[in-house]
Amino acid sequence: MTIDLNADLGEGFGAWRMGDDEAMLDLVTSANVACGYHAGDPDIMARCFTLAKARGVAIGAHVSFPDLAGFGRRRIPYSAAEVERLVAYQIGAAQALALYSGHRLTYVKCHGALANVAEVEPEIALAVARAMRAVDAGLTLLAIARSEQVAAAEHAGVAIAHEVFADRAYLDDGRLKSRSQKGAVIEDPDWAAARAVNMLSEQAIVTESGKRLPTPIDSICVHGDTAHAVEMTRRLRAALERAGYQLLPFAPSQA
Amino acid sequence: MTIDLNADLGEGFGAWRMGDDEAMLDLVTSANVACGYHAGDPDIMARCFTLAKARGVAIGAHVSFPDLAGFGRRRIPYSAAEVERLVAYQIGAAQALALYSGHRLTYVKCHGALANVAEVEPEIALAVARAMRAVDAGLTLLAIARSEQVAAAEHAGVAIAHEVFADRAYLDDGRLKSRSQKGAVIEDPDWAAARAVNMLSEQAIVTESGKRLPTPIDSICVHGDTAHAVEMTRRLRAALERAGYQLLPFAPSQA
Amino acid sequence: MTIDLNADLGEGFGAWRMGDDEAMLDLVTSANVACGYHAGDPDIMARCFTLAKARGVAIGAHVSFPDLAGFGRRRIPYSAAEVERLVAYQIGAAQALALYSGHRLTYVKCHGALANVAEVEPEIALAVARAMRAVDAGLTLLAIARSEQVAAAEHAGVAIAHEVFADRAYLDDGRLKSRSQKGAVIEDPDWAAARAVNMLSEQAIVTESGKRLPTPIDSICVHGDTAHAVEMTRRLRAALERAGYQLLPFAPSQA
Amino acid sequence: MTIDLNADLGEGFGAWRMGDDEAMLDLVTSANVACGYHAGDPDIMARCFTLAKARGVAIGAHVSFPDLAGFGRRRIPYSAAEVERLVAYQIGAAQALALYSGHRLTYVKCHGALANVAEVEPEIALAVARAMRAVDAGLTLLAIARSEQVAAAEHAGVAIAHEVFADRAYLDDGRLKSRSQKGAVIEDPDWAAARAVNMLSEQAIVTESGKRLPTPIDSICVHGDTAHAVEMTRRLRAALERAGYQLLPFAPSQA
Repeated sequence: MTIDLNADLGEGFGAWRMGDDEAMLDLVTSANVACGYHAGDPDIMARCFTLAKARGVAIGAHVSFPDLAGFGRRRIPYSAAEVERLVAYQIGAAQALALYSGHRLTYVKCHGALANVAEVEPEIALAVARAMRAVDAGLTLLAIARSEQVAAAEHAGVAIAHEVFADRAYLDDGRLKSRSQKGAVIEDPDWAAARAVNMLSEQAIVTESGKRLPTPIDSICVHGDTAHAVEMTRRLRAALERAGYQLLPFAPSQA
Repeated sequence: MTIDLNADLGEGFGAWRMGDDEAMLDLVTSANVACGYHAGDPDIMARCFTLAKARGVAIGAHVSFPDLAGFGRRRIPYSAAEVERLVAYQIGAAQALALYSGHRLTYVKCHGALANVAEVEPEIALAVARAMRAVDAGLTLLAIARSEQVAAAEHAGVAIAHEVFADRAYLDDGRLKSRSQKGAVIEDPDWAAARAVNMLSEQAIVTESGKRLPTPIDSICVHGDTAHAVEMTRRLRAALERAGYQLLPFAPSQA
Repeated sequence: MTIDLNADLGEGFGAWRMGDDEAMLDLVTSANVACGYHAGDPDIMARCFTLAKARGVAIGAHVSFPDLAGFGRRRIPYSAAEVERLVAYQIGAAQALALYSGHRLTYVKCHGALANVAEVEPEIALAVARAMRAVDAGLTLLAIARSEQVAAAEHAGVAIAHEVFADRAYLDDGRLKSRSQKGAVIEDPDWAAARAVNMLSEQAIVTESGKRLPTPIDSICVHGDTAHAVEMTRRLRAALERAGYQLLPFAPSQA
Repeated sequence: MTIDLNADLGEGFGAWRMGDDEAMLDLVTSANVACGYHAGDPDIMARCFTLAKARGVAIGAHVSFPDLAGFGRRRIPYSAAEVERLVAYQIGAAQALALYSGHRLTYVKCHGALANVAEVEPEIALAVARAMRAVDAGLTLLAIARSEQVAAAEHAGVAIAHEVFADRAYLDDGRLKSRSQKGAVIEDPDWAAARAVNMLSEQAIVTESGKRLPTPIDSICVHGDTAHAVEMTRRLRAALERAGYQLLPFAPSQA
């Protein structure tokens, strides 16, 4: 039994930093690295990739709407065709800096508002998958489980890894409870770890109401930017190991 | 006898345009396409690459300091290591959009202030060559003839194509006469064409004073952003054909 | 009988230009000058203000969402409170460069997507008016006639000037026909001029169907960025003069 | 006996933060607030100004080269005339957000590379002073003591306040020892405080070698972005109070 832990890293810009990349890279097995559109710059990207390589951590392009001022959290109105091109751009930039750093980019994940949109809008989800296939057919999409991203990747013939969130409550439709609602974020590391282990053993999203929504689970997403992110991840990792899981970068399901 | 004509294209940004890309792509054999750092965005890049592909025009990444406000014409203080990474980033982005557009990126050329610096500073020239080799060892550097770029490419084991300027006067040290000096820019298309043919037949830069500075010549650079750029290029192309040259993308000298 | 002609100017950025500011400044009586958020930079702003001063042309801050890549034409999700602050920022920057140029900023107009939103959403319209009042209670809002901007300015105690469009068709609800629909833009300068004169004499928006929607009219908006903008404006100005109107910057209605 | 303490604040951007603005605003008497060119945005500016107002802290525009990626620490090649305009832009933006926040901008200070250049180049120093005079003749320049900024302000008829650094070593020519040299930064709060008190009582910069360079001293600059900035400032403030100084915003020397 193996499982992957992924986190968003390299989210600084210029003189600004966010989160503790080095500490997180000691704990996760996959690093979603910002590509300069919502955060990140060539120096930060190269540093992340080099640190990841040294630790055997897989790397992915964390693609986003171009929005440094909004950290990629706002929907910027782009057509599906425009999204294809801006995703292609970011993948290419990340691939190049991965090679420069002696590593290899193996996957793509959507960030922030782009993730939210691609979760529910088939056209945008398909745009991301099409960009991936055009640039490198060997890339895997790290997709939100049971989202339109999964369907789009299957449709475009792109390999998929399915992720769930350890520290976020799910609604019965399989979507995340909005952060603006009570109980959306699970602060207790032990409770988050227990949930993750439970979802893995069930191979299902377990919703707030206790409903089980079957899904393959290839990766668990943890947050890297909060105050106690490192501690949360450490405990989650320990709980997974106690439950008999080996922490390893995901192997994609077949495309 | 073959020769390549290259021009800087895709130099718009968002709603802004510069030059007539489509008309120029009917005349040149290599297109240096901006990669989003001094100009260009994913839409403009993809459009240029698609138009180039349809015309058999070779495409290169026109890499620059990140400086939209200054159009890449100002030296932004970056270390050589930082230049390596920002060049790698741009090459990767261009490669991805080339693939997305059904084309293939075959070369790299420096733009504006980065070109000026790489012309004379070995460390920055080497940074560009090293970035190229790290990202794709098959890329050719389209280098200013007799500049530090040539030495750097040779040192890094990167293939080179040598370019001269049809419409710019040369000093006896092989450098371009500064635009701020009289006679630096040759406005007469017939005179520019005659100079180009002469330099090709001599396989040498011919300076303002008449001195001959031997160099291989693989490509002639024409400007795409001035009012009469298209007409200048048309006449230059015709003159080269009359002189017996076939216009074809350059084949790189051996690395 | 006097009337004001206003146009969007200073819409370049760095090395890029849009429209012929100097020709337009010979024809209009009010210049809406971009403030660096969708276009414009300190050099372009100062040049516009200096040219306007020399011609007796009034100047306004053309405020926008921050979106150089989208030229301010896309709705970027900002709260009303954020809009207040980003409008205040732009007004202040424009005031400073106006003083630097020996001129004085007398009004504010919304650009692009911000104008579209403020036309119909009372909260955003009010945010603009509140920013104006906070920064300089003497400023006038150049508002789309019969829009929420008018109500917001009245509510906030900000002076108003009402504008109509000479070259755009109106629907019966007083809104502009969408550019995506046939007949939305009137290309014939004489027809545009006749419409403007008619609306002025009726003191009403005249809709496509012939309906009259009463409104004060203080200014006519002309476009400065199209190929035939200068010719359109010249004919409109001549038609207005023939109809007995004196072209002068608007005097605001009382707040 | 009164003295002013100033620090650089509001140095975040979008989702990024730098330093603890609120803690520093409890300790300083003047806040140099970033204006969006090297850091800062309308929301951060307004928040800083509002917090400063509530504490009786004076506010200044911390003007910079436009360089978010480099945090304003790199010299971007601008002419003196361009510097005038970009400084005017930032002052105006800051004035507007100060008014929006119920406060009033009273001074201007140069940040980073612009400060370094204006310290030694009379033309750039004069450009800053000229921009201030054009926008608001009532503003004071918070100038590095014994620098070209002082001469430029006097020449332009702009009021001056002179600042020294508590935690930086001075060379015998009155310039700061470069951070790349040993002993450039004084880490010990008590030693920094003792130096500041000594310079105040001597009304002179005291250099590393013990030389005294006479200068009026209106303000002491403390750093707000380092790990122990708040503690350093607290101790400095306490030492100044023990030495009999009342902490108050500077009153400018006569222009």
